[in-house]
Amino acid sequence: MSVPRIGIWIIGARGGVSVTTLVGLSALRRGVIPETGLVSSLADFAHLPLAEWDQFVVGGHEIRSTSLLAEAERLHRESRVIEASVLGASRTFLSQTDANIRPGVLWNVGSTIRQLADGAIPDESLARSAVDRIQRDLKEFQQREGLDKVVVVNLASTEALLDPTLWPETWSQAEQMLEEPNCSLPASSLYAIGALELGMPYINFTPSLGATPLGIDELAKKKNICHAGRDAKTGETLLKSVLAPMFAARNLEVMSWVGHNIFGNLDGKVLSDPENKASKVKSKDQLLERILGYPPQSLVSIEHIGSLGDWKTAWDHVHFRGFLQTPMTLQLTWQGCDSLLAAPLVLDLVRFVLVAQERGETGALGALGSFFKSPLGTDQHGFADQTRVLLKWSRGPE
Amino acid sequence: MSVPRIGIWIIGARGGVSVTTLVGLSALRRGVIPETGLVSSLADFAHLPLAEWDQFVVGGHEIRSTSLLAEAERLHRESRVIEASVLGASRTFLSQTDANIRPGVLWNVGSTIRQLADGAIPDESLARSAVDRIQRDLKEFQQREGLDKVVVVNLASTEALLDPTLWPETWSQAEQMLEEPNCSLPASSLYAIGALELGMPYINFTPSLGATPLGIDELAKKKNICHAGRDAKTGETLLKSVLAPMFAARNLEVMSWVGHNIFGNLDGKVLSDPENKASKVKSKDQLLERILGYPPQSLVSIEHIGSLGDWKTAWDHVHFRGFLQTPMTLQLTWQGCDSLLAAPLVLDLVRFVLVAQERGETGALGALGSFFKSPLGTDQHGFADQTRVLLKWSRGPE
Amino acid sequence: MSVPRIGIWIIGARGGVSVTTLVGLSALRRGVIPETGLVSSLADFAHLPLAEWDQFVVGGHEIRSTSLLAEAERLHRESRVIEASVLGASRTFLSQTDANIRPGVLWNVGSTIRQLADGAIPDESLARSAVDRIQRDLKEFQQREGLDKVVVVNLASTEALLDPTLWPETWSQAEQMLEEPNCSLPASSLYAIGALELGMPYINFTPSLGATPLGIDELAKKKNICHAGRDAKTGETLLKSVLAPMFAARNLEVMSWVGHNIFGNLDGKVLSDPENKASKVKSKDQLLERILGYPPQSLVSIEHIGSLGDWKTAWDHVHFRGFLQTPMTLQLTWQGCDSLLAAPLVLDLVRFVLVAQERGETGALGALGSFFKSPLGTDQHGFADQTRVLLKWSRGPE
Amino acid sequence: MSVPRIGIWIIGARGGVSVTTLVGLSALRRGVIPETGLVSSLADFAHLPLAEWDQFVVGGHEIRSTSLLAEAERLHRESRVIEASVLGASRTFLSQTDANIRPGVLWNVGSTIRQLADGAIPDESLARSAVDRIQRDLKEFQQREGLDKVVVVNLASTEALLDPTLWPETWSQAEQMLEEPNCSLPASSLYAIGALELGMPYINFTPSLGATPLGIDELAKKKNICHAGRDAKTGETLLKSVLAPMFAARNLEVMSWVGHNIFGNLDGKVLSDPENKASKVKSKDQLLERILGYPPQSLVSIEHIGSLGDWKTAWDHVHFRGFLQTPMTLQLTWQGCDSLLAAPLVLDLVRFVLVAQERGETGALGALGSFFKSPLGTDQHGFADQTRVLLKWSRGPE
Repeated sequence: MSVPRIGIWIIGARGGVSVTTLVGLSALRRGVIPETGLVSSLADFAHLPLAEWDQFVVGGHEIRSTSLLAEAERLHRESRVIEASVLGASRTFLSQTDANIRPGVLWNVGSTIRQLADGAIPDESLARSAVDRIQRDLKEFQQREGLDKVVVVNLASTEALLDPTLWPETWSQAEQMLEEPNCSLPASSLYAIGALELGMPYINFTPSLGATPLGIDELAKKKNICHAGRDAKTGETLLKSVLAPMFAARNLEVMSWVGHNIFGNLDGKVLSDPENKASKVKSKDQLLERILGYPPQSLVSIEHIGSLGDWKTAWDHVHFRGFLQTPMTLQLTWQGCDSLLAAPLVLDLVRFVLVAQERGETGALGALGSFFKSPLGTDQHGFADQTRVLLKWSRGPE
Repeated sequence: MSVPRIGIWIIGARGGVSVTTLVGLSALRRGVIPETGLVSSLADFAHLPLAEWDQFVVGGHEIRSTSLLAEAERLHRESRVIEASVLGASRTFLSQTDANIRPGVLWNVGSTIRQLADGAIPDESLARSAVDRIQRDLKEFQQREGLDKVVVVNLASTEALLDPTLWPETWSQAEQMLEEPNCSLPASSLYAIGALELGMPYINFTPSLGATPLGIDELAKKKNICHAGRDAKTGETLLKSVLAPMFAARNLEVMSWVGHNIFGNLDGKVLSDPENKASKVKSKDQLLERILGYPPQSLVSIEHIGSLGDWKTAWDHVHFRGFLQTPMTLQLTWQGCDSLLAAPLVLDLVRFVLVAQERGETGALGALGSFFKSPLGTDQHGFADQTRVLLKWSRGPE
Repeated sequence: MSVPRIGIWIIGARGGVSVTTLVGLSALRRGVIPETGLVSSLADFAHLPLAEWDQFVVGGHEIRSTSLLAEAERLHRESRVIEASVLGASRTFLSQTDANIRPGVLWNVGSTIRQLADGAIPDESLARSAVDRIQRDLKEFQQREGLDKVVVVNLASTEALLDPTLWPETWSQAEQMLEEPNCSLPASSLYAIGALELGMPYINFTPSLGATPLGIDELAKKKNICHAGRDAKTGETLLKSVLAPMFAARNLEVMSWVGHNIFGNLDGKVLSDPENKASKVKSKDQLLERILGYPPQSLVSIEHIGSLGDWKTAWDHVHFRGFLQTPMTLQLTWQGCDSLLAAPLVLDLVRFVLVAQERGETGALGALGSFFKSPLGTDQHGFADQTRVLLKWSRGPE
Repeated sequence: MSVPRIGIWIIGARGGVSVTTLVGLSALRRGVIPETGLVSSLADFAHLPLAEWDQFVVGGHEIRSTSLLAEAERLHRESRVIEASVLGASRTFLSQTDANIRPGVLWNVGSTIRQLADGAIPDESLARSAVDRIQRDLKEFQQREGLDKVVVVNLASTEALLDPTLWPETWSQAEQMLEEPNCSLPASSLYAIGALELGMPYINFTPSLGATPLGIDELAKKKNICHAGRDAKTGETLLKSVLAPMFAARNLEVMSWVGHNIFGNLDGKVLSDPENKASKVKSKDQLLERILGYPPQSLVSIEHIGSLGDWKTAWDHVHFRGFLQTPMTLQLTWQGCDSLLAAPLVLDLVRFVLVAQERGETGALGALGSFFKSPLGTDQHGFADQTRVLLKWSRGPE
């Protein structure tokens, strides 16, 4: 029996995270880098039937006119990451993948993202037509490449947040919305619907809406397929979910938690639009109350500082009270390269989601909560607890 | 039936941690401060039969000639902690307690600690005689105050570390050492032996040897009594035990972890003696390898900076490698008041140890590992894991 | 001949800076604190005929209904500053001064400041009437206390910035504006006009407009009186003016300079109104281009974090390029108590302005530029250069 | 008339600073990098007759057996600095220069440095013989390359410090020492003597002794030649010399100043020998007292952390007291690439020293004090003052 071929279909296929994922995937196939940063490669998960690097074929949607290679070179040049030799050796893989990329969907992405789009991106008059186009692209990719499975991953820029009162609560409600000329669902949800209707798992790596509404989760369950999300936890929020439980466990009262984030990539530019930023800030900010049991004054700011390129610096100032009401302080400075923190998690999520699919799990995968700022399918926000749940899940149903 | 009276016997009874514990205990009795910083007061432990604040009577050993009140006032003045009104209202309690303090033991404490000692502190010619004196003081305290139980807590300055090849492996070996004129056991172990022989639990809050040797643990088991230790985890090491598991769980390679600690209290002065410092540094440094599974280059420095008083500032620089071998950095600055971080843990440990004693647990209490840098009776070093074990322990044997 | 009595008339007389100045002045008179933080007390200025602490009598305007003592106690309690004994001994001085405080002016202060005001504060229908009331208060103060001189200092909350195209360029223009029912001049300028018309020097410690317009400077010159401003340089901007010249002198290219400020006093609350904040941010941000000769990307944020009380924490991230285009980073964290950094400079400015007045200097005192973020009467922004000019000025005209 | 050819003779010619200087010089000649980081290229010095980049020919002494190219590639690989294209284009220049490098001198360099040395390095039995060999190499370089002038620059590893009571106070004393079999002068001083006797200027970029003793300065004056030193000011100490004057000018009392330096290059390895480190720490530490007028508690630690490569991170914690005795804090984190901060200063110093030589200045050049931690020929330590002196010097004698 031949080894199955697996498609990864990336929304936002030429963005920084995608490009880094592709360069890394190419290097992993060639065995020239260690598996540092890959959670699924830990000894803890060695017993799982995880997909191998050379089983993957990648395609995707993109709204900008650039090339994977150009973006990879820009990343190397502006952010001083990815060694020249590693980049060079991935050229063929990048250009092959580029040929699998199709024009994305602009439905309700908001004006800031729309401004980034190539003029030739088609605009549909109905959301359902956009879903149809997405599905044509997905089926064509699967067929042309002879893929056993396709996993869809959303890595596109953060959309403005839809008012939760407008989220469809049932699939029939959602289905009806798709036919309305003013359908308020954003592109991320159309991609999710497109994938799930075809029985393909959907991973939402971003704060955008995606498969978050109950109505879309219902679709997944109807189709016996799983999805995972929302908003990958790679830096400052990861630290919050690691440190806040310590304050709780020691009965130290967090009075305020201020986080200030600066970075210079495209994501940062999109987030300088207050509407898009609101989605992100909400996602970064909510877990403190969930973990601590009370809401400290908290503040998250995100600013685009061009000189930093893909490097993100987060400064956090935690002001807490100890015994005898004494105020004390913890400050953190996190200096990480955003795309390089995110990329291995994309590959981890694809591999874990494939295991869940194989096992027949459906709906939101709460066991993958450790990967997300706003995890679906679970209420846990503390990182250590989430990690334990993942380990337990990996051992399968008891 | 009357409420039991419980004695807390503190070694280093007029040191910063002890004084803060006493001021806090006085304020807790009067109900004028919230229970912030007390782990045992978390809702998670509400089901336990914990001792109440007014059950406690405190006494102890001390080698310096000063008074509790003078030390409390110095802390207030030099470190700007403890509100004037809270301090004022604890005066009576402090002077009552002062009357319960007896001259400590100088056996093998090293020259730096010896220099701090009042000239009138007796010097014994045999370790066994020192143990005898300790036990006379403990019994007299129990009797005079009519105490149902006494818990002994070591809060004294860090001793130089005894070469592990000299640690007694059996109780009979230890017993024999006590009779030798050159007995190499330090004061902290003599106090431990003194307490355990009398069937009193012993808590080692410091990096000193105390009840660490197997031979002393054997004594505890023989006497059906428990002990806990070693070296309370209050700041930088607490953070390490919280953060290192994150690097492990994300498969990020920690290349180096540098910690630089500055503070200005008596502890700091004693630690400026390289022999005493070695005990502390070892205790702060070992957990990284245990948690990560490999030893990153690590460095812990501790320096006495007088202007800081009881405030400790720790700067940590973590250099780690992510995907595609990219180096990234996390820096922490922790600004905490040492005595105020430690004091509530003293009360927590006393309360938890009393529960264990009531339950008949003997030997080193591994379930209390979350409180210590070098926990006895367990191999766990990750804080979240230790916290879960404590919670489970609190629910009692299944 | 008797020693002259000098009045200090403070706008915002019960604010944090004023209260701290008064407690400090009281302590200086009693000789119980060293002159730390006072620039005018440096040996460099020992040759100047500086006013002595006991020559000063203080009064002022205030819009809130509170008392100096209540505010001083709040500062002590919430921010853990000012020793209890120092505070206690200043009670009499504070209550005497309280009796010299009159209701302030609300003309064009903006809605955020207006909300802080006591209901009984009178509202004038003409700006000129407000100026008249100010002048009655000043004259009454001078007469009643038998003062030889009065210096007016603006320490009130930051007003929204008036569009520079509306600033009066001549005194006759300004004079006319005062008679117009919609006069756009803010309260700070009315106080300035009130003082200068009476021949009293005016010091603008805040980013508000005050005597900044040329038309008001013209008034000062006509009246042969001096003024100084604008926006005291106490923390983050002080550091910028110290560090930016280093980057220039070493030909290092500053690509971006991000400053994030958090603090919890009343000033912070007022600055959470975007209009009021704009005045402050502009003042903090402009000097980089002036010093470096080019504008790096820069960003200053100011946020009100209640738990910090009067303590301000500023985090600055400077991203610069060195030889061979290598990007490097300098980060700063400044933790200072705002009122305590500001208060001695109030006393310094009053003393130096009195020297200038004695010497007959008129208009904006550029020599005092080292005290201000937006110095009037000079183009220098580098702190070392400003310091040298102050020293040279102190030696008098050559 | 043809353009003069100028030799730069580097001691430690294959170390990190030298290699970076050479790659940079090559790039400057080709005009492919801007002059960022070069002080001499500021508009302020445009009026000076500075040497052009293509006038320079480089040679030097070295004790290790490696090649310039290998070292440049290591720097690129380990520290992610110097763009691949820039490095590639400098290959020819590096290999040409390599041919000009001769075996260095090991006289009194100490065991740590000696261990780095190639076995073939000759050992002299008399210091004078070592000087003779140095001079033969210098003369041969000048002759073979047809050089008008040669400037000698010491970039070699920091030697252990010679007890100041042993420094020669006159040239005749020094001359005599050279003939003694146990001559205590270190290699850096022998190079200095070698250069100065030949009338070549000597620049001491390191904390080693070099031309510091009065007896060697006397030689320079006798030979009508100039020299400059000691210990280039590139990072933490630069910041100290910029910031300490601010505390002085604001009358803020610095109670303690702690500096913790970590880095991973060869320099760091040599400095992990306590004897060598002492030279460096002394040089970094003394300026505080000079600038402030009193000695705060200060502490400088330097640690070798391999993972950092050529990147140096310095954390500074400044604890100071303001008005009403309130303690406040400034923390700095400086992340710079050591060699890239140093290299442009090497070129600056050579250019400025050539101007001084042309003008006939002799002895230690105090006007270059802004470049050094322990400046010779001046008592100024504040950076702004030093900068002003340099500017004034550049305008020539009045």
